[in-house]
Amino acid sequence: MTGVDVVAIGNALVDVLSNETDEFVTRHAMVKGSMDLIDTARAEALYAAMGPGVEISGGSAANTTAGIVSLGGSAAYIGRVRDDQLGVVYRHDLTAAGVHFDTVAATNGLATGRSLIIVTPDAERTMNTYLGASSELTVDDVDTDLIRRAAITYLEGYLWDSPAAQDAYRHAANVAHDAGRQVALTLSDGFVVDRHRDTFLDLIADSVDLLFANDVELQSLYEVDTFDAAIAKVRHHCTIAAITRGADGSVLLSGDDIIEVPVEPVPGGHVVDTTGAGDLYAAGVMHGLARGRDLRTCGRFGGLAASECISHLGARPQTSLADAAVAAGIG
Amino acid sequence: MTGVDVVAIGNALVDVLSNETDEFVTRHAMVKGSMDLIDTARAEALYAAMGPGVEISGGSAANTTAGIVSLGGSAAYIGRVRDDQLGVVYRHDLTAAGVHFDTVAATNGLATGRSLIIVTPDAERTMNTYLGASSELTVDDVDTDLIRRAAITYLEGYLWDSPAAQDAYRHAANVAHDAGRQVALTLSDGFVVDRHRDTFLDLIADSVDLLFANDVELQSLYEVDTFDAAIAKVRHHCTIAAITRGADGSVLLSGDDIIEVPVEPVPGGHVVDTTGAGDLYAAGVMHGLARGRDLRTCGRFGGLAASECISHLGARPQTSLADAAVAAGIG
Repeated sequence: MTGVDVVAIGNALVDVLSNETDEFVTRHAMVKGSMDLIDTARAEALYAAMGPGVEISGGSAANTTAGIVSLGGSAAYIGRVRDDQLGVVYRHDLTAAGVHFDTVAATNGLATGRSLIIVTPDAERTMNTYLGASSELTVDDVDTDLIRRAAITYLEGYLWDSPAAQDAYRHAANVAHDAGRQVALTLSDGFVVDRHRDTFLDLIADSVDLLFANDVELQSLYEVDTFDAAIAKVRHHCTIAAITRGADGSVLLSGDDIIEVPVEPVPGGHVVDTTGAGDLYAAGVMHGLARGRDLRTCGRFGGLAASECISHLGARPQTSLADAAVAAGIG
Repeated sequence: MTGVDVVAIGNALVDVLSNETDEFVTRHAMVKGSMDLIDTARAEALYAAMGPGVEISGGSAANTTAGIVSLGGSAAYIGRVRDDQLGVVYRHDLTAAGVHFDTVAATNGLATGRSLIIVTPDAERTMNTYLGASSELTVDDVDTDLIRRAAITYLEGYLWDSPAAQDAYRHAANVAHDAGRQVALTLSDGFVVDRHRDTFLDLIADSVDLLFANDVELQSLYEVDTFDAAIAKVRHHCTIAAITRGADGSVLLSGDDIIEVPVEPVPGGHVVDTTGAGDLYAAGVMHGLARGRDLRTCGRFGGLAASECISHLGARPQTSLADAAVAAGIG
């Protein structure tokens, strides 16, 4: 491959999705809508309590790369799996989606990571992630040649829990900037922001051109009580910020511009599973940016990709997003 | 557990489902709607060619047991997996569905089996099965105590390709009959019937009280050109025969009785994936029989369970079939 629109780095995880009641979420002490990191013992206990599952390859940043390819762009992925059955499934699914993925599978250490995802009747997802092999990503896994060839290097906030991954991110960001490329970051989750506020603030100031977050994560980052206060803070912290607000759509900021984009209609009219909505929104925005589209159109690409994602179980596109964009008049 | 409605023996397989075009089926030399046994090399080549997959535990007879539990009955399963990741997933899903499953996982030999299932736009499924560990089931895996406690021992025709499994089936049937229990068989697939016509005919005559088949399989079994001719043959070959005819519903035969049962409406009105339709039909019929219901009601249970199954991807119930039966007035 020569040039590529986006290379993403993140936790390579197989999603195990199960429909459960709100009572299940409460009983197992989960915070609905969040992502909790779990150890082997908790993973085994929780899995035993869950109903029959569906396995679909996931991982936040990997979902984003699948979205970019579905929109007609090009994408590559850096992430760590083991040489086990789930690792083979993971590589197959991402490659079959058209994403370039050649991070070598680990031959020892932890098993391929997985996220036990509880989908409640309101379609909200609550994630319990056993990072496994993905937590052992280091700077050695960063393909610097790939970073140099990508218009945008996209970093997943979830991976920031690992000190070795922080080093890998900083290295990737430096390589990208030295090559005249852009760096994007998603904050991923409110609890991740709580754990790493200071280093995230430094990373954004030093290395991030394009920031993705939802309203809750952004307010947590700046420790402010209102969305407007958060907007005022982020405006001069990075070049572009794209902030999602659930059913209220998204807001994109660039310099003094502020653009509000409403949500797109959900295909089929029914929200099934919100897993991956933010990942696919980021895919749409970066696809637009990589093509030099105006910021409003970038936001619409994001909304389109997110609405397709929440219309079905699983976090990767099941229909052509390029076709959806054409149908929506922005293809 | 004490008594159990049904114990099933079959190939323990994880389904890998992918939506593909009719052209894909043709290009890879598959016979649409059938099941083809594939070796490791073919499995790898086909998997590489398939798009992103969804993994859902399957296996024909195991799907049937999950259906019986969803209807409010009790069921147990005998099948062979390896002590690998897919084996763990398989055991979890079947157990979480409420099915008793304690066949010990193999610690050596082939990996847990899987079926690469191509779902075409017409919702038809075409299966390419790598049997793996499931092909190594022997008479030693048959829990005779379990067989004695089950009202019906249900045998999956797919497994008949293995000589060791044939021995296991004959042994299970003998144990069941010695305990005064009933034995059911499903023919599973037209090509399986072609490969094993004579031994199937003998097995049915010697050991089968209740036969499941679709119209094509039944005509193949008796090498006749019409459905009526097949019906005339099967009528005196076993005690009860339950024959599915796709969109034309099913026919149940007992002695001189012949009962035609129409299909039930598909929840949501849209057929998504026909994988498992026959398995769930068998679940409904056996659930009714185990409860002493009349044959027409047994057929309606079968139709209800099948219609729920084809309304979604994957071959096991995603909603309560007991509730569906109540709603249909036969609960």
